[in-house]
Amino acid sequence: MSGADMLSSTIEKLVLANQILSNEGILDAFGHVSARNPDNPEQFLLSRAVAPSLVTEDGVMLHDFDGDVLDKAYAPYAERILHARIYKARPDVQAICHNHAAPLLPFTVTGVELKPIMHMAGMFYDGIPVYDEGEAASGMLIVSASEADRVARALGGKRGLLMRGHGAVVVGSTVEEVVMSSVYLAANAEVQYRAMQMGTPKFISPEEGQAAMEKNFRPIALGRAWSYWVDRVKSKG
Amino acid sequence: MSGADMLSSTIEKLVLANQILSNEGILDAFGHVSARNPDNPEQFLLSRAVAPSLVTEDGVMLHDFDGDVLDKAYAPYAERILHARIYKARPDVQAICHNHAAPLLPFTVTGVELKPIMHMAGMFYDGIPVYDEGEAASGMLIVSASEADRVARALGGKRGLLMRGHGAVVVGSTVEEVVMSSVYLAANAEVQYRAMQMGTPKFISPEEGQAAMEKNFRPIALGRAWSYWVDRVKSKG
Amino acid sequence: MSGADMLSSTIEKLVLANQILSNEGILDAFGHVSARNPDNPEQFLLSRAVAPSLVTEDGVMLHDFDGDVLDKAYAPYAERILHARIYKARPDVQAICHNHAAPLLPFTVTGVELKPIMHMAGMFYDGIPVYDEGEAASGMLIVSASEADRVARALGGKRGLLMRGHGAVVVGSTVEEVVMSSVYLAANAEVQYRAMQMGTPKFISPEEGQAAMEKNFRPIALGRAWSYWVDRVKSKG
Amino acid sequence: MSGADMLSSTIEKLVLANQILSNEGILDAFGHVSARNPDNPEQFLLSRAVAPSLVTEDGVMLHDFDGDVLDKAYAPYAERILHARIYKARPDVQAICHNHAAPLLPFTVTGVELKPIMHMAGMFYDGIPVYDEGEAASGMLIVSASEADRVARALGGKRGLLMRGHGAVVVGSTVEEVVMSSVYLAANAEVQYRAMQMGTPKFISPEEGQAAMEKNFRPIALGRAWSYWVDRVKSKG
Repeated sequence: MSGADMLSSTIEKLVLANQILSNEGILDAFGHVSARNPDNPEQFLLSRAVAPSLVTEDGVMLHDFDGDVLDKAYAPYAERILHARIYKARPDVQAICHNHAAPLLPFTVTGVELKPIMHMAGMFYDGIPVYDEGEAASGMLIVSASEADRVARALGGKRGLLMRGHGAVVVGSTVEEVVMSSVYLAANAEVQYRAMQMGTPKFISPEEGQAAMEKNFRPIALGRAWSYWVDRVKSKG
Repeated sequence: MSGADMLSSTIEKLVLANQILSNEGILDAFGHVSARNPDNPEQFLLSRAVAPSLVTEDGVMLHDFDGDVLDKAYAPYAERILHARIYKARPDVQAICHNHAAPLLPFTVTGVELKPIMHMAGMFYDGIPVYDEGEAASGMLIVSASEADRVARALGGKRGLLMRGHGAVVVGSTVEEVVMSSVYLAANAEVQYRAMQMGTPKFISPEEGQAAMEKNFRPIALGRAWSYWVDRVKSKG
Repeated sequence: MSGADMLSSTIEKLVLANQILSNEGILDAFGHVSARNPDNPEQFLLSRAVAPSLVTEDGVMLHDFDGDVLDKAYAPYAERILHARIYKARPDVQAICHNHAAPLLPFTVTGVELKPIMHMAGMFYDGIPVYDEGEAASGMLIVSASEADRVARALGGKRGLLMRGHGAVVVGSTVEEVVMSSVYLAANAEVQYRAMQMGTPKFISPEEGQAAMEKNFRPIALGRAWSYWVDRVKSKG
Repeated sequence: MSGADMLSSTIEKLVLANQILSNEGILDAFGHVSARNPDNPEQFLLSRAVAPSLVTEDGVMLHDFDGDVLDKAYAPYAERILHARIYKARPDVQAICHNHAAPLLPFTVTGVELKPIMHMAGMFYDGIPVYDEGEAASGMLIVSASEADRVARALGGKRGLLMRGHGAVVVGSTVEEVVMSSVYLAANAEVQYRAMQMGTPKFISPEEGQAAMEKNFRPIALGRAWSYWVDRVKSKG
């Protein structure tokens, strides 16, 4: 693909990712998904400030690592700096989702560690840290470069992070990986909550989790899931 | 805007608020949303007695602080006096929602205090009192001026109040604020319930809550959410 | 209304009641709603054996107190005798719903008494007995007159009864009452479950429950709810 | 029916079973349903590797007991060997569903035995074993003949089995039985979870369960449920 084709294909995928994650209940009026610019690793693509289900290709804008918008004049998301600093800190990351999925929130406030209990969430095999270093005056949003840097440090090399009383950050090597990871992180939280109410669950081991991730991220599995999610978006009208 | 335009715009918004809160599961066949008359602060707008999803502009009627209907002959809601007395007691309040949202009800009967645990419910940072001074013969509805006055006193200067075995009252400075507050009060109850089953949660502080409220009530955030909720109403029908 | 008009209006209402309770998640492929024949109190109307959402006016058949079908040749429900014996034992009952609503089932097997905790379920103010006298060989279905008589005795003069590991029976003076009672019995079970996980809830008193029932069964309230449920059935198709 | 008619009718039913179980929330992008070839008991029918909701008649392929595809060139499911080895070990089994239904997962990791608590799940009256002999490197998927053989042994003569951190296998004598069993196994898990949170539930006895199974598997009951599920699939699209 030419650079223009890759950019246009990434934008198309990003719009779908927003619609999918809204349709699957991971995002509501808030939260966002971004992708690194395939043509320039120091930039990323993120919608203007609209609800994820209403994101359009035209509204996707190029941002730099300071969170500045480079190509359009629409109002940007307040938390774009969160994406910016993670792309800066993590060259391996190609896509990011920030969401407030309800099943995750209890794990952000209780000290109970969220960890893979089902094979579909195996990609989080090396842990999901909890960030709780926010300044009260920011209203728990991540709107300053310094706070976004702290979040990026807390995330380290992991695929997911929770923010106390706020939500999650999920990162990956492709937009599809991030969508799958976000969907099954919330599913895992549901199962883990219930299992812990019932007794002392046996979690999946890091080795099992990593092997499951490798199976689930094969193109045939990831593509099957993507087609399913897209069909659900399309068939609802 | 002229007075007529403001009135007509408020009625239009009120109809949408009813449809939104029904569609989001906050209202079912019962509950209601009202708005103060923008042209006369001693009056408020409330639908005739129909289910919120079936409210129409034509059915919205002007009521006074005694709950009397001023301009139309449709049958009014039995609990209109609840709205009347809160508007009388609270000049700052421009809109009110009364709902029976299921996640709230356990907090009305257990003595467990409902309080902000997630940033989207930060607007309730100064507390959510529980009203339990009803007379048995009223069937737990608020149908007398004296009882409505007691509810208004229990509410005080707060943004939300629970009524034992019945539901909630949510107030705000705009219809949009009341819709957002009602949606996230129920969401907060879901998260708090689960977090308390898991352990001893860390709630958000009043300072964090107030700062979050200020972020969430910015026109760009409130407008984004409103567009999302309206789109969900429109796209289902 | 003439007898023919009353019969036809009851059948129409019964079809809607089946569709409503299916749409509201109270019935799935199983369960049924019946009504006494307005022209002959020793007969009742019940669909042929199809899923409630697929009930049609043509499929509604007249049954007598032995469960025999009087007017049509379609295959009847196996549990029609349950309806028959309750109509026989309770001249005040004009309509019956038998359902397996999921939130009710835990209350059928744990010895935890289901009782009104929210005003919308006030109609169950005098208690909800649990029936557990089935013969193992019947597979927990109520298919014999003797077992149906035992269920009717366990129900006594109440508005609702649970059957261990099976479901519920809800009765009332009109089809509309039975629909409202069935919807809010399940809603009450949801709230009560959660409240009991949180602590020791304050239930509504029999006096409060009865007063709430009287408010909720007023034609203006029952009619408002009916219109809402019908609109939800119509607007999904 | 001729052999060709039986094959074509089984394929049609299999496509519907996939769509039904997806629509009822038992399957998502993953999981699958298969049926034994009515013309050759050493072969079975299973879709190519697509999400269950997107299965088509054209995509259904014949597989043998080694999991090899016999008639088409589409990419097969990685876990087809799981189906193959159960068909080999269990000549009585005519259909199999493998699913990851969320309510089942906590029972796979906690040592809490899942067992019939409601009559609709009576078919599992003789127990539901838990399989936990996977090799970490397989990522919890069943992709080797030796592991599939171990699963088949753990299943024994039962109708259902859970796999730790992964999901369930449900088998039966017809596609319809497997659909009904899969739907109510998840429903039973929901009820059992809640009942165990509330106290010490009374489960249904093996005798009650078996009798209930016989009632629920009568053609009139199974057919009623099948028509209901098909109607839900059709009426949403």
